[in-house]
Amino acid sequence: MSLEKFFSPKSVAVIGASRTPRKLGHEILKNLKESFKGEIYPINPNTEEILDLKAYPSVLEVEEPIDLAIIALPAETVSELVKECIKKKIKACIIISSGFSEIGEKERELELKNISKQGKIRIIGPNCMGIYKKNLDMLFHPKERLKRPPEGSISFISQSGAFGSILLDILANDGVGVSKYISIGNKIDVDETELIDYLEEDLNTRCIAIYLESISDGEKFIKTAKKITKKKPIVVFKGGKTEKGVEAVVSHTGSMAGSAEIYSAAFKQAGVIEAETSDELFDFAKVLAKQPVLKDNKIAIVTDGGGFGIVAIDAAGKYGLEVTSLSNETIKALNKFLPSYAINKNPVDLTGDADAERYENALKTVLNDKNVSGVVCIALLQIPNLGDEIINVLRDCKVFGKPITVCSAGSDYVMKRNRKIEGLGIPVYPTSERAVKALSILYKYGKILKKKD
Amino acid sequence: MSLEKFFSPKSVAVIGASRTPRKLGHEILKNLKESFKGEIYPINPNTEEILDLKAYPSVLEVEEPIDLAIIALPAETVSELVKECIKKKIKACIIISSGFSEIGEKERELELKNISKQGKIRIIGPNCMGIYKKNLDMLFHPKERLKRPPEGSISFISQSGAFGSILLDILANDGVGVSKYISIGNKIDVDETELIDYLEEDLNTRCIAIYLESISDGEKFIKTAKKITKKKPIVVFKGGKTEKGVEAVVSHTGSMAGSAEIYSAAFKQAGVIEAETSDELFDFAKVLAKQPVLKDNKIAIVTDGGGFGIVAIDAAGKYGLEVTSLSNETIKALNKFLPSYAINKNPVDLTGDADAERYENALKTVLNDKNVSGVVCIALLQIPNLGDEIINVLRDCKVFGKPITVCSAGSDYVMKRNRKIEGLGIPVYPTSERAVKALSILYKYGKILKKKD
Repeated sequence: MSLEKFFSPKSVAVIGASRTPRKLGHEILKNLKESFKGEIYPINPNTEEILDLKAYPSVLEVEEPIDLAIIALPAETVSELVKECIKKKIKACIIISSGFSEIGEKERELELKNISKQGKIRIIGPNCMGIYKKNLDMLFHPKERLKRPPEGSISFISQSGAFGSILLDILANDGVGVSKYISIGNKIDVDETELIDYLEEDLNTRCIAIYLESISDGEKFIKTAKKITKKKPIVVFKGGKTEKGVEAVVSHTGSMAGSAEIYSAAFKQAGVIEAETSDELFDFAKVLAKQPVLKDNKIAIVTDGGGFGIVAIDAAGKYGLEVTSLSNETIKALNKFLPSYAINKNPVDLTGDADAERYENALKTVLNDKNVSGVVCIALLQIPNLGDEIINVLRDCKVFGKPITVCSAGSDYVMKRNRKIEGLGIPVYPTSERAVKALSILYKYGKILKKKD
Repeated sequence: MSLEKFFSPKSVAVIGASRTPRKLGHEILKNLKESFKGEIYPINPNTEEILDLKAYPSVLEVEEPIDLAIIALPAETVSELVKECIKKKIKACIIISSGFSEIGEKERELELKNISKQGKIRIIGPNCMGIYKKNLDMLFHPKERLKRPPEGSISFISQSGAFGSILLDILANDGVGVSKYISIGNKIDVDETELIDYLEEDLNTRCIAIYLESISDGEKFIKTAKKITKKKPIVVFKGGKTEKGVEAVVSHTGSMAGSAEIYSAAFKQAGVIEAETSDELFDFAKVLAKQPVLKDNKIAIVTDGGGFGIVAIDAAGKYGLEVTSLSNETIKALNKFLPSYAINKNPVDLTGDADAERYENALKTVLNDKNVSGVVCIALLQIPNLGDEIINVLRDCKVFGKPITVCSAGSDYVMKRNRKIEGLGIPVYPTSERAVKALSILYKYGKILKKKD
């Protein structure tokens, strides 16, 4: 069976739905009810109604067909519940419950695996947080605590539920959009490889980001990823790289983990981009989802703060990009509108009194230069002269078809505008180093696309 | 003359004060008026009153003594204005105006330097943003765009005004306190060395953070820093490390810059901690300002998300920290309150249903372990069970006298709580790697303090 029933079910049963706020089975039902348009069946033998929905003692008591079951009850009961799902002919089941191999209960997990295999029911989990997409929100986090990101083009797979959910909150805070989030937990059935294969065909997904502690089947993963990365980028952040980290992975997920070198070599072979830190997973995913590749390593920097420009130059050197010489025509064109105290070389320093018009002229001039393949725009929005027109200026720069990243950081005033810029498809970074590194990843992905093998 | 008149003037003249909102001379006056308790004299020959303050055509027309002058008028006029300040017996002058060596006007700068030297007036700048402290705010950034940080124990020197002001906004957003901020610009007189020397004696400064592109006098800097770093930590982020970066520094500040290796060796010799990125400057400064040193490299990790724990272990390995074995007594004590599905080894995984009480028990138990010298606490505040009591739990852990850093990230709900935790003197980081690295810097500073030479 394909994974479609997980992502586009017509009806969902929540096994372990609860009337008690803060309990997982309550929060999941609540968030599902507020997002999902299909039929919802709360399963709870001790009540007749939860959140104005009719409750059933078991899935077997529901007359209508059920596409997807979500189980949030103690581990000891899960196998029996899955048997009931099989009997009910449910084809897809997400097991939130923990208490399996991650705490050493390997036999319990094996039993569950065998039951589901025989019953031909597909499983995500156990020990996971399920799926999040705009109209299918089964997170147990209250919305007032964990914001949901807007719809967008990153799909995100996480072997750690906590890691994944926090990332969603950060993405929401920064205004970065998500297509699908899948927390895979102990992955006794559906794993990272099957999911990336599914997401390859998903038109809403332009970049796949993965937090991974182990790979179920290395060979299959490499083969599949190799095919996909020629079409859309995959970024992976691997947890458990050091000796002690590997030990902890075995304890956390109950799965085997190989050495960091083996993983890095496999990722490289498969054209998968590896993030070295959690910040990078996020930084890289959004630029890959939104911007075209950087065709060579020649970039320009446009800034209103000289110090930021210098830090960006250092970063370019570090990450293999060249702060290229601007053509004579470009310099002439810059001289037409730049004040005498501005700098007409790369990095172009518009200085601290720059307004949006000066940015517009400078960005367009520089993007027109055939020596320049991409631009890092550093805009300190706190400067009194710089109005909100800068947002539209950045949007209009997209027509050049060259990648752009922005460095802008601060508190509420700036964050609000950064979210708007993100919403227009231009990734924003809090430091110039991170904005430069993001551009370097577009260069790296460009090389992956060109590689013949 | 000491620098006292810069930081604690009784009266300030704003030369170039303007009635026009958004002009530098207006914004500076406005922010100064709203923060400064002493006398303010707007200097502007074309008006009689600005912002309800009596304006004067020149400092020479002011009858009362003036401690500090701020000049925000075009570069061509600055020398004459400084001469008037000297005549008026003003001893301290901050020159905001740009248009000196940074745009190649070296002679203009030299003239200014000679005039001020002969006149025995002390100068900060030119081409700078002046000083910010709680009751002396001369930033030209509107408060609704750039938030002011609370009072605190970091003092920050920046050779780039833009870099410094953005950092203030970020610190404000995160609730991290600042004692004094000094933007030094082209530093024709007061430089980084004299300022750190001044800040050594400043009881409100517990950590000195510096963004630097060049050092005026290397030998003097090393000598001074060496003395200070035995008393309080200094963190430096150096802009202009690559060849291209060095070129840009020469253009930006008009000063000479040496190679990255020379600087790094000098910093090391002086016991100065070097940040490799802008994020690190900020990350390191706040932990050094707030937390005691880590006496050896043995740490514990307490988490409610297994994935975060694994990432923290990897980071510990990378940054030279040991995720130490807990003593048998500690494990026994943990077993008394941990649920069966939690992990009683280091990293202690309280799992996703942890409440503040479980954190309290776990943190206190682990901090009591003599094998443990410091703790990284990973707390995902989005979890439904985890209430605001966690904030007081973290505060109460300070009595153990061992350093603690926190990993917590998310949107508004989390940020609000993170600011409270920061306010209690416990630094918060958005990723577990950064929380671990911060702890490793406390270990590094501990070794600097112990070093005999």
